[in-house]
Amino acid sequence: MSAAVFALNPSSLTRPCLSSRILSIFSSYHSTSVFAMAGESKSKSGGGKKKEVKKETGLGLTNKKDDNFGEWYSEVVVNADMIEYYDISGCYILRPWTMSIWEAMQEFFDAEIKKMKIKNCYFPLFVSPGVLQKEKDHIEGFAPEVAWVTKSGESDLEVPIAIRPTSETVMYPYYSKWIRGHRDLPLKLNQWCNVVRWEFSNPTPFIRSREFLWQEGHTAFATQEEADAEVLAILELYRQIYEDYLAVPVIKGKKSEMEKFAGGYYTTSVEAFIPHTGRGVQGATSHCLGQNFAKMFEITYENDKGEKAMVWQNSWAYSTRTIGVMVMTHGDDKGLVLPPKVAAVQVIVIPVPFKDADTIGIFDACASTVKLLSEAGIRAEADLRDNYSPGWKYSHWEMKGVPLRLEIGPKDLANSQVRAVRRDNSAKKDLPMTNLVDQVKELLNTIQKNLFDLAKQKRDECEVEKDVKARTKGEMGAAKTLCSPFDQPEMEDGTLCFASGKPAKKWTYWGRSY
Amino acid sequence: MSAAVFALNPSSLTRPCLSSRILSIFSSYHSTSVFAMAGESKSKSGGGKKKEVKKETGLGLTNKKDDNFGEWYSEVVVNADMIEYYDISGCYILRPWTMSIWEAMQEFFDAEIKKMKIKNCYFPLFVSPGVLQKEKDHIEGFAPEVAWVTKSGESDLEVPIAIRPTSETVMYPYYSKWIRGHRDLPLKLNQWCNVVRWEFSNPTPFIRSREFLWQEGHTAFATQEEADAEVLAILELYRQIYEDYLAVPVIKGKKSEMEKFAGGYYTTSVEAFIPHTGRGVQGATSHCLGQNFAKMFEITYENDKGEKAMVWQNSWAYSTRTIGVMVMTHGDDKGLVLPPKVAAVQVIVIPVPFKDADTIGIFDACASTVKLLSEAGIRAEADLRDNYSPGWKYSHWEMKGVPLRLEIGPKDLANSQVRAVRRDNSAKKDLPMTNLVDQVKELLNTIQKNLFDLAKQKRDECEVEKDVKARTKGEMGAAKTLCSPFDQPEMEDGTLCFASGKPAKKWTYWGRSY
Repeated sequence: MSAAVFALNPSSLTRPCLSSRILSIFSSYHSTSVFAMAGESKSKSGGGKKKEVKKETGLGLTNKKDDNFGEWYSEVVVNADMIEYYDISGCYILRPWTMSIWEAMQEFFDAEIKKMKIKNCYFPLFVSPGVLQKEKDHIEGFAPEVAWVTKSGESDLEVPIAIRPTSETVMYPYYSKWIRGHRDLPLKLNQWCNVVRWEFSNPTPFIRSREFLWQEGHTAFATQEEADAEVLAILELYRQIYEDYLAVPVIKGKKSEMEKFAGGYYTTSVEAFIPHTGRGVQGATSHCLGQNFAKMFEITYENDKGEKAMVWQNSWAYSTRTIGVMVMTHGDDKGLVLPPKVAAVQVIVIPVPFKDADTIGIFDACASTVKLLSEAGIRAEADLRDNYSPGWKYSHWEMKGVPLRLEIGPKDLANSQVRAVRRDNSAKKDLPMTNLVDQVKELLNTIQKNLFDLAKQKRDECEVEKDVKARTKGEMGAAKTLCSPFDQPEMEDGTLCFASGKPAKKWTYWGRSY
Repeated sequence: MSAAVFALNPSSLTRPCLSSRILSIFSSYHSTSVFAMAGESKSKSGGGKKKEVKKETGLGLTNKKDDNFGEWYSEVVVNADMIEYYDISGCYILRPWTMSIWEAMQEFFDAEIKKMKIKNCYFPLFVSPGVLQKEKDHIEGFAPEVAWVTKSGESDLEVPIAIRPTSETVMYPYYSKWIRGHRDLPLKLNQWCNVVRWEFSNPTPFIRSREFLWQEGHTAFATQEEADAEVLAILELYRQIYEDYLAVPVIKGKKSEMEKFAGGYYTTSVEAFIPHTGRGVQGATSHCLGQNFAKMFEITYENDKGEKAMVWQNSWAYSTRTIGVMVMTHGDDKGLVLPPKVAAVQVIVIPVPFKDADTIGIFDACASTVKLLSEAGIRAEADLRDNYSPGWKYSHWEMKGVPLRLEIGPKDLANSQVRAVRRDNSAKKDLPMTNLVDQVKELLNTIQKNLFDLAKQKRDECEVEKDVKARTKGEMGAAKTLCSPFDQPEMEDGTLCFASGKPAKKWTYWGRSY
């Protein structure tokens, strides 16, 4: 494990929309290219069958999480059948094992925003250059990463057309059209879609890819109060996605002026922390755009006094990056570890026949156990393949991160029990068949909770360094502020900023980030 | 109404995968440009506020369905808040009123294919040119419509990259990698995504757009029998989407060699028919690709005898086009007509206060009615806005196609009843508040059924012409085969093909199609 450092430091940096103090995380890690993505170039052919032999003979990972985090990560996402590398760099295939995690989060989040009267829509993938460039700060932030369509078939297009990197400029001309009176407010839309950011630095599955899936919410209000309240309500949903679904602890807070959304007013985020690299990772962002876009796109309305007024806007998004953060947080040297709430398969049932045992009876017991659990709403499957040994199956489903394994052998059959093995800590326990459903449900809840607790403990254990300044001097250029947490620790009067030496105003997290 | 002709004709055309006979639909319609899309150029500005006055003063449509179908259609989709024209031609904004229809179908279809063990995945938007061009017939079919990305930021890409028009060539190199033994089969994947086909002919909202949403299923089997069976199972789901959800009657059948999917083996489809234009419209397609792509992409497996064998593949898709067919089928001169099963709002409750009446009591009754219906799983809303008259509200919700309106006035309040008005036929009925939920449910079922029956009756009423040959001679170039229906009428021996004069083999539908 790299020597990750987690530090709490005072700072004098001013933050326009948050009061006082700064809290800092610092990392002393050395690798300049943690994510070398060894797998990337190897599988360029796409159609090759290179990994066959390895896959069928050796199930384990060749890299260890503590020794070689980057290689470990890219090996896990491939070997757990989450990702397939694609023949265009920075693009990845999301396999079903990934999509079911995405869908579990989507089902939760979509229902929650519908309760908030936010409605789904779908705006085009393409943006015309004039509209894209309307908000200067915004386009400056995105311009280098915009992909341009210039041809269709053999013909050049009259005007090149951009592919959305995000949809503010796609949508807001129509907000201007649709919003006229105060009765048209609030306007609250969301879309589930793909966006493209043609980045050239270290592509990493889920974490940094040229195309990714996300939801983007875009709302307009009459007052700042309403906008502010929604920013926090959405941020809370993002916290729930991370903590309650992915079992990843996050810190809610506000971004600095430098790190806020291009063209926005202020940005809040949930920030996760990867102890193995000492890096923070931005989990999801909820922006208040203020009235800046309203000015550029003329999104005005007649208020109840008959006066023309500008709307207050928010935009907010979470992406498939969430899944990468989850893999990094829980995965181990056996492979992926899935929190039960997002696992496509929560329970894998494996027959353990012996030579003279009642093989048919064992297989039947496996099938009926799956039926019993499935009917109770538990996502259970049996691996009844006859060409793999039980041991091979254990490793296979451990690699794929299934939270709970149930083994059924002759002794279990005789004793009307199953042997349960937890993925998170390898703990074994015999469960009597009576009341199996309740016991399995309880175990799944325990695993979900334990994964979160363990991740939180690991994060918090990272050694607190008081004199980060001296230790990180040479690396300052690469570190940046992550967020100023809403939960501010106390600060004694006279505390000085660790960086400037001036009186500190608040605590802020600092670190290198993905 | 244009003189649509619906005809049954024998033909000698051979179809490789279907036996005997041909059945023909012919239309004698005259317009060469039914879909001039008058609205298209007018709203190019995107952010303009041009239609305001009209929208607020005159709620009705300026075009009639019978007189001017194309203009009527583009007016309906805009005025019902389904579509907003976008500043890039052929791209449209799908508003929430549209998305809820799409989501209702998606919820059904996604659950059904999951029962069939088909799993969701997500492949990249981009295709490299080498892979795209691997299957020659396939790329010939799509090449003229492919959009190419050639730049990112200010830099030219080394190699232009295509945007998927469909994902056969995106996916199949990886099918080749993933499929090795017979135990890897069947491989059954689906994705919900956007695709781009840069067509230049008559863009039409939903029906023909440059970007659209769809699902695309891609499956691989060991045997043709399994592939054949799935083609029909999926086609049946498409029929259910059209007939059970959208209340649009369709004909299941097989495409001719000329009209089949580029590079495929055979194509089945559900075909709808728009009486007002006399045009058929391809509703959705379920293709058997045979072993053609398997050959090109080397998708082989070792069968249980240890021999190398090629897989059999299918691909199948339905798109947002479904929604356009629904609008064309049910819409009338008051606007959209939504089948209850896909309506975002199934019941709109409108207070009808009078000067001296108990206004608060009426508004409360509306709110509690909505609560009652909502708790019973009915999608109900009340329009309690105080700045619009009841009459304005009636027109507004009729334009948006809400299936059932409940009016509550002083008399209704006094008599413990509501007045129900059906959108499909304007029939009115007083419903006692006792047992309201059951009555509303029954009415919604009746409306759903009536919409389908009426559409089927209109389609079937189209006059059967025996001597289409003479009447359509001049237009033959534009007509094409739609499909050979699986339900073949009887054909007497010696029947001759209407076109060639040779002995007929089977019946086929012919017509001009969108």
